[in-house]
Parts: sequence; structure tokens; C-alpha cells
Amino acid sequence: MKHAIRCNAAVLAVGWLLGWLTAFDLSEAYSTQSFVCADELEKVNTAADPLPTWNEGKAKQAVVEFVAKVTTQGGKDFVPVDERIAVFDNDGTLWPENPVPFQVAYVFDELKRRATKEPKLADDPMVNAALTGDFAKLLEGDHHDGLMRITALTHAGMTTDEFRSSVEAWLASARHPRFNQLYDQLAYQPMQELLRYLRAKGFKTFIVSGGGADFMRVWAERVYGIPPEQVIGSTARTKFELRETGPVLVKTLDYLFVDDKEGKPVGIHQFIGRRPIACFGNSDGDLAMLQYTTINNPRPSFGMIIHHTDDEREYAYDAKPKSSGKLIEALKEAPQRGWTVVSMQDDWKTIFPSKK
Amino acid sequence: MKHAIRCNAAVLAVGWLLGWLTAFDLSEAYSTQSFVCADELEKVNTAADPLPTWNEGKAKQAVVEFVAKVTTQGGKDFVPVDERIAVFDNDGTLWPENPVPFQVAYVFDELKRRATKEPKLADDPMVNAALTGDFAKLLEGDHHDGLMRITALTHAGMTTDEFRSSVEAWLASARHPRFNQLYDQLAYQPMQELLRYLRAKGFKTFIVSGGGADFMRVWAERVYGIPPEQVIGSTARTKFELRETGPVLVKTLDYLFVDDKEGKPVGIHQFIGRRPIACFGNSDGDLAMLQYTTINNPRPSFGMIIHHTDDEREYAYDAKPKSSGKLIEALKEAPQRGWTVVSMQDDWKTIFPSKK
Repeated sequence: MKHAIRCNAAVLAVGWLLGWLTAFDLSEAYSTQSFVCADELEKVNTAADPLPTWNEGKAKQAVVEFVAKVTTQGGKDFVPVDERIAVFDNDGTLWPENPVPFQVAYVFDELKRRATKEPKLADDPMVNAALTGDFAKLLEGDHHDGLMRITALTHAGMTTDEFRSSVEAWLASARHPRFNQLYDQLAYQPMQELLRYLRAKGFKTFIVSGGGADFMRVWAERVYGIPPEQVIGSTARTKFELRETGPVLVKTLDYLFVDDKEGKPVGIHQFIGRRPIACFGNSDGDLAMLQYTTINNPRPSFGMIIHHTDDEREYAYDAKPKSSGKLIEALKEAPQRGWTVVSMQDDWKTIFPSKK
Repeated sequence: MKHAIRCNAAVLAVGWLLGWLTAFDLSEAYSTQSFVCADELEKVNTAADPLPTWNEGKAKQAVVEFVAKVTTQGGKDFVPVDERIAVFDNDGTLWPENPVPFQVAYVFDELKRRATKEPKLADDPMVNAALTGDFAKLLEGDHHDGLMRITALTHAGMTTDEFRSSVEAWLASARHPRFNQLYDQLAYQPMQELLRYLRAKGFKTFIVSGGGADFMRVWAERVYGIPPEQVIGSTARTKFELRETGPVLVKTLDYLFVDDKEGKPVGIHQFIGRRPIACFGNSDGDLAMLQYTTINNPRPSFGMIIHHTDDEREYAYDAKPKSSGKLIEALKEAPQRGWTVVSMQDDWKTIFPSKK
């Protein structure tokens, strides 16, 4: 049973892991700073412009008009605070997903780190394939055993606390190959402003990502101001053990749930239990969640697609992504659904926060 | 695979469904009223006593002292608001679980209702067993096929909206056999005060119950002031469909997760992602969650067990429950763990809200 579930998951996971072979390209780096506003409400409400790094244009106008509409007391489109649910994809929507999704970078860095301390680890042919960049071998076979093997080695068999410590240590040292920044310093500044703006207007902001929930929860509160209980991602079932040292939860890959494509509305229902009124994504992996949020929603709703059009400041891709983030169907459907498409090149004054 | 999962779940579920054979006993009824305070903070902070229906005593003193300790700025035991997570079992902790858990009452009432409109339904031997009270037949076989059959008939194959409507219609008409009240009018008044008190002190209150999340989310916000995204319960995976009429999620019993016993800390990690500092339960089904909250927690923590000791005003049971709610191990472990045991008879002035 477990094996069968793992294999299904592997097939899905492969889509998310596409593009490992992408070559790294280097260009100017940006120094960034992310933080959580304790007093977001005041900050934003007193700000002349809550979205200062958004250029004036249709995209900015659309989101501001939607927020004004649903938050106007007595207006016909007013939505009570409890129902102001906004869902955000993470990779490619709130931070980059190139040259590979950051969680994939973690997997390879973690294997490299451990291989130096556990020489026997490299005897594992799949670990060796990962260390030597033999991606073809990792994807061999119907069940992509290599992929599942290195995922299991880095995401299962340890306690949730051990996993957290490992991710924290990686975040504190690993740097993005192109921007030469700590990965958690690369959250998009315009999206940070949007998150704070929506929260200041009574929205509850959730992440709904194909990435691992345990991975994102380590830093999402510090970086985005989104607490762990509002981070929905791919998950597997942990195992409770009461040890001498106290209770622990051991990570496994059993009952793996991949929170991508049709899995996103499924995850939204399971974790939130009501339909969002605003949805922000950047790829066909977000299509079902955009549909679930905006089609025949009894409440006014809003959909936005972040289109990566800026190869100079970030990356430019859609139908042929460098890694994850394939965008064809959602872009095609956007006009008929009334979804707002953001051009990073035209709509954003800056991509990353500027030096303070 | 699905079958295997269903069977595991059935075995676990049986524990929760024990006691169907309990005879209904009738006695004086209480008129109750439940509501959500929009201005809980002010109401509670200005109240002379935030827990007016709790008798003065060790139990009340223990919870008030804990809350004071973790909310005192600058104190050594201060806990930041973000980490003030309180988890509550539902059946037997926030409302009664006799003569049967209210969700079980829903299953039987729903089958009766549908049988009148769908005569063929009674041709199903398991439905017939349910309608005729042949519980032995429902529990026959290693896989308790009867139990799973009627659960599937009432909890799967419909959209999440259809299920919600069905539960709402039941809640609006069905009455508790002993108290002659609508079921959602039977929330314990002292626990309602406790929920509001904790929220007023910056706690985020969650339900962590073996009951179905979809069932509880229909009424938890209205009755307890707990929004759907803070209701953790037993769940199965829904299926996303984009129909002519719009997107729907179809309920299934696939990947069933039973949020009971060791499943409770597992559910807490999956949905909340951090350890609670306060836990409230009433049975051995809450033992693992009490352990996870209080043993070697780096933060100050609090555990409370509601002991049903009042046969006159509610029910009296522990080792031999009338239905669910077996309490042996947790009660035995309480002294050594420092968990507070509440005697409903001695510690609560009233059980249910009084007439307004």
C-alpha cells in the first residue's frame, strides 16, 4: 500500500522536479531583507500607497479595486472578515523557483553535507547519482526509485524537530547561485507588500504550495508573516512516539499527499474548509485552485497570475520553464475567467527588497 | 489500497462508535443558547470573573494561574501570542457524547430520512440493519463492512456542499433524546466561557476531535466561535471536479485519517505545525495529545481532563462509558503529569447555558 502511494506521488513529484538539468547562470545580485510586521494594520492603512513597488496599471488597479469592493461596509459586494481567505502559491509566486525549486536545492546540499560525515552514504547508488549529478539515473524506472530514495533520505526517518533544525541550518548558510543571497532573502518585494496589504484589510493569508509543508513552515512566519497553521503544502503522515526524552513525531512518506494541480483545491478544503475569495499563482499547477476560487463563487472573487517576463531582473518563462512553473493552460484561460495577469517586467518596480 | 486503508480506519472507528446499544434514558431537559462573541476580548477583560459558571476550586485556580503566567509580559514563563495554541477535544469535552456521539445520531437519522424517499435504500442489508437497530450485523466481520457501508452512504459520494446542507438540515430539526434540545444547543457553558477566556488572552483555539472535520465545520464557528480552518478532525480525501455548474469537491473515504489516540498529535502537526501549550480532553483518546502538549514541552504547558461525574445533570462515566469516552489510562497518568482533573459535578455550577 505504502509503495503504491509512494509511486503515485513520485509520478506527480516528477512534474514538480522537472528541470534539474538547467544550467546555472550568474548575473548581478540583489541584497534583500525580509521581515514580519507586527503592526501591519497601522503601517498599511496609514501608508499613502500600500503597494509602492507596483507600477500604476491594470494589475495594481484590479487588486486594489477588488479589495476596496469586498471591504466596503454596506456595499453589495461586502465580504465578512471571516470569509476573506486569500491563497498564495509559493514557488514562482512569492519567491523564485529557478534554477531549481529551493527545496530541491536543499535536498542536494543536504546529501552533500551528510556524505562528508557519512562516507557510506555515497555507497548508495542513488545518493551517488545525486552527488554526481546523474539525474537520468534518479528518474529511471516507472517508479522513479532514485527520486523517491533521495527524498526519503532527506525527508523521512527523522523527527520533525530534527528536520526543522536541518532546514534552519541550511537556510543560514546556503546561497542562491545567481543572486548570491540566502534563499530566504529572495521573497518578492511586491508580493510581500500584497500579503501585508491584504492582511491589513482583514484577509487571512494562506500558502497553498506543492512544496513540503514541513519545509515551508520553518521560515514562512519569519519571511512572509504566515504562521505554520496557514501553510498548506505536500505532506506525509508522521508517527507519534513517546520516547525517554519525551514525545516525538517521526517523519515518513506514508499517505503522501502532493498539494499540486487538482490537489490544491483538495488541500484547501481539507485544511481551510471554505472557498477562498482571492487566489494568486504563477503556473498550471495553480489552475485548479484559480478555478475553485473564482468560478461560480457565491462571493466576489479575484484571481491573479504572476507571469515571469523579466529575464534581466529575475527569469522569463511560461510554456518552457527552466524548472517547475509551466504556464500554458492557466494563461489561456485567464481572459475568459477574468483573471489578472501580472507582467513582472512591466508591473513591478523592483523584484526583490532593496538594501535598507 | 483503498480497501486496506478503509479497513484500518474501520477498526479504529469502532472504538469511537462503541456503545450504540446504550438505551436512551429521559430526564429533565435544559434550554440552552450558544453564540459567538464578536467582542470577546472586551467582554472577558472587563468581566469581574471570566469563568462565572466555574466553582472556586483547584481546577478553576489551575487554569487561571496558567493563563496569568504565560501572558505576563516580562515574566519568565511568558509565551508569545503566536505560540499560544490551545487544543480541545469535542465529544465529551465541549458537548456530550451520549447516548451516542452526535455524528452517529446524524448517520442513523439521515438513513431513516432517506429511506422514506428512496425505498430501495432499505434493500441494502446493512442499511436495513441500521434502520432496524441490528448493530451486531453492522459490526460483523474483520472489516466491519456494515459500519463502513453506512458511513460511506452518509459521508461519501456527495459534494462537500451537499453534505453541509444535509448536516445543517439535521441540526435545525433533530433533538437530543434526553435533553430535548437541538444538538447544537448543548455545548457546555463552562467550556464556552473557557474558550472565550483563552481567546481573549491571545490563545488560538483549535478543535482536535475523532469526529469528522466536515461534520464539525458546519456548526463549530457558530457554536464555539472556532472557524473551519481551526477544526481538526477525521478526514478523507475529496476529489476535485469542474462541472457545468462550477467546481465541486466530491467526498470519498479514500486515504481516511482517523484523528484519535496517536492520530491526534499527528493531526496537530499536520494542521497546526507546532506544539500546543494547552490541551483539554476527556478520554483515553486524548491521552497522546495530552502527552504531546505537556511532556518536555520547552514552553510552559497545561493539561486538563473533563471527568464526567454528574449523572443527574449530564452523565457519569469513565472506565465503562455509555458510548465513546473510555477514561482509564489518562486518569491514571494525570497526577504524575500534573494534569488538572475537572469534576463536572463539583467544579461546574451549571452544565448547559441557562435560559436568557
